[in-house]
Amino acid sequence: MNVIRCAQNPVIRAEDVKPSRPDFKVLGAFNAGVAKYEGETILLLRVAEAPVLDRPGEVLVPRLNEAGTEVIVERYEETDPRYDFTDSRFVAVDGQVIMLTSLSHLRVARSKDGVHFDIDPQPALFPENALEAWGIEDPRITQIGDTYYITYSSASIRGVGAGLAETKDFVTFKRHGLMLAPENKDVMLFPEKIDGKYYTLHRPVPKSFGAPEMWIAESPDLLHWGNHRFLMGLSEQGWDSGRMGGGAVPIRTERGWLVLYHGADAKHRYCMGAALLDLEDPGKVIARSTRPFMEPEADYEVNGFFGGVVFSCGALLIGDTVRMYYGAADEVMAVADIPLDDIFSTLS
Amino acid sequence: MNVIRCAQNPVIRAEDVKPSRPDFKVLGAFNAGVAKYEGETILLLRVAEAPVLDRPGEVLVPRLNEAGTEVIVERYEETDPRYDFTDSRFVAVDGQVIMLTSLSHLRVARSKDGVHFDIDPQPALFPENALEAWGIEDPRITQIGDTYYITYSSASIRGVGAGLAETKDFVTFKRHGLMLAPENKDVMLFPEKIDGKYYTLHRPVPKSFGAPEMWIAESPDLLHWGNHRFLMGLSEQGWDSGRMGGGAVPIRTERGWLVLYHGADAKHRYCMGAALLDLEDPGKVIARSTRPFMEPEADYEVNGFFGGVVFSCGALLIGDTVRMYYGAADEVMAVADIPLDDIFSTLS
Repeated sequence: MNVIRCAQNPVIRAEDVKPSRPDFKVLGAFNAGVAKYEGETILLLRVAEAPVLDRPGEVLVPRLNEAGTEVIVERYEETDPRYDFTDSRFVAVDGQVIMLTSLSHLRVARSKDGVHFDIDPQPALFPENALEAWGIEDPRITQIGDTYYITYSSASIRGVGAGLAETKDFVTFKRHGLMLAPENKDVMLFPEKIDGKYYTLHRPVPKSFGAPEMWIAESPDLLHWGNHRFLMGLSEQGWDSGRMGGGAVPIRTERGWLVLYHGADAKHRYCMGAALLDLEDPGKVIARSTRPFMEPEADYEVNGFFGGVVFSCGALLIGDTVRMYYGAADEVMAVADIPLDDIFSTLS
Repeated sequence: MNVIRCAQNPVIRAEDVKPSRPDFKVLGAFNAGVAKYEGETILLLRVAEAPVLDRPGEVLVPRLNEAGTEVIVERYEETDPRYDFTDSRFVAVDGQVIMLTSLSHLRVARSKDGVHFDIDPQPALFPENALEAWGIEDPRITQIGDTYYITYSSASIRGVGAGLAETKDFVTFKRHGLMLAPENKDVMLFPEKIDGKYYTLHRPVPKSFGAPEMWIAESPDLLHWGNHRFLMGLSEQGWDSGRMGGGAVPIRTERGWLVLYHGADAKHRYCMGAALLDLEDPGKVIARSTRPFMEPEADYEVNGFFGGVVFSCGALLIGDTVRMYYGAADEVMAVADIPLDDIFSTLS
């Protein structure tokens, strides 16, 4: 494999991002959607924040209030026996997650060279209703005409669903509510109609039986979705046998729709692989990576908020090279160039 | 409460239904959708079947083959240490359901008086693709114009999603694939457009966090769904604090859309309650039962395949009385008449 990591990696770090309020700190700026707009490269960052801990021995939980109108910070004693604080990312009771200890929003960063970014001082999209009360995460951007559609994870006590928003200028945004009900993540719209229909990839997570696997659905208008079909599932063993989901927005190539997707094994090591879908019927998988084209190897990928993760939400095809933007270790943004043929070489 | 159970209950029993093939037995005929068609009452029964056990010590698993084209029966030794056969309804590994021991299809029954039914000797809708490989269950019927839309649970190794079909005569049926992805059950379409949109209730079951609760979504065409909103959730304590989901198709009343729904407590005792939704904005809950209007009390409700269950998938409003058809104990069909005012008296 010929993965050329950018020498400037990580191109965006947590400390590069101004918190949304003075009593919050930025834990990570990662898993960004990517788009080209007026000659610039736009990243729509997931910015994860937590309240600054001002009293030792406490656990702070930031979220919207019940009405979904205002950020509140709840305080818990870390010795409180009613709660399980073992995993610092959430609070659990009886093995069930009941609160998160961070709150994510989406932030725009702009670059002329695709490597050096100016990061907006203010959020672009901030949680603003009860279904976003635990944060909005992991955006993907799909350009259709002069409109950019943004799909993102919308988290709350009701579960994680797929939010949809649109913008024409990355300044004003219009929300369209949840396009897919919980539990669903890793939703990415195809950039054009195929045989008169819009398509999206998605990754439902059923509870009673079934696994977190990739599905495809159709729409007449991008807002309403139906004819959900199973697309591809966990492998029997190997790099994508534990978890998987779509990554970058599908890219049209001569050989088919190229989907860069993430997979993890039982040890939660997140790698990137690829699938090729039929150009005329994207519900048909032509080929799939038997090995990842990229694994967490660089220091900023192996170590961080959640180490051992490379996770892309967007990539650009430049000539015969894929420029993949990706979150590393759930903390920073990085970029790598990978020849298309090298990605194809992992397929079978 | 003034729940008048039909003297002929159960009006349909498992032994009244001819198996779909000679080597299968019928375990239950229950959870039927209901409609009026050409002056008759139509029930679309869920018929659960299992292979007749011909060799003691075996567990038989009926399902479609991988291609979804043919029913196969797999045989397991009940002493096989790789599998957990503790719950006779399914086979588990590491606490995860991996197979069901019955296969359900949908069957039409017809009645002139709403009590005495003639049951078709053949299935109306039988599992026919990979997403239905573990069976199709719990149909709801919504008449819109001269078309009857049928929503049902579509079960497979990929989870349980919401299938959609339509018929004009209950003889030929047309499928429309999955209208909602896994995990989702208890899906019921409203019988008319409201402010230019179709609406459906649904009950997603998220895994990572969240609970099995009731949602509402919108559609321009009944096939594609969006703007998913949370509708109502588990109560803090009481009869619907453990599980809940929509039951009968919403009925228009002067006070609002009447939704008969099922709830269960931690002991898995399924009762029926009601909610009233705003006629103009069905996403708005006006009132809800603080106590069930019906609990499992009759012998055929308390005892059976899964005792302690009353579970309605359809009801008719006749004057000021609700004629509710319901599955009892996951085995038989029963009917009860309940004055509308008695149902309203449980609301607050």
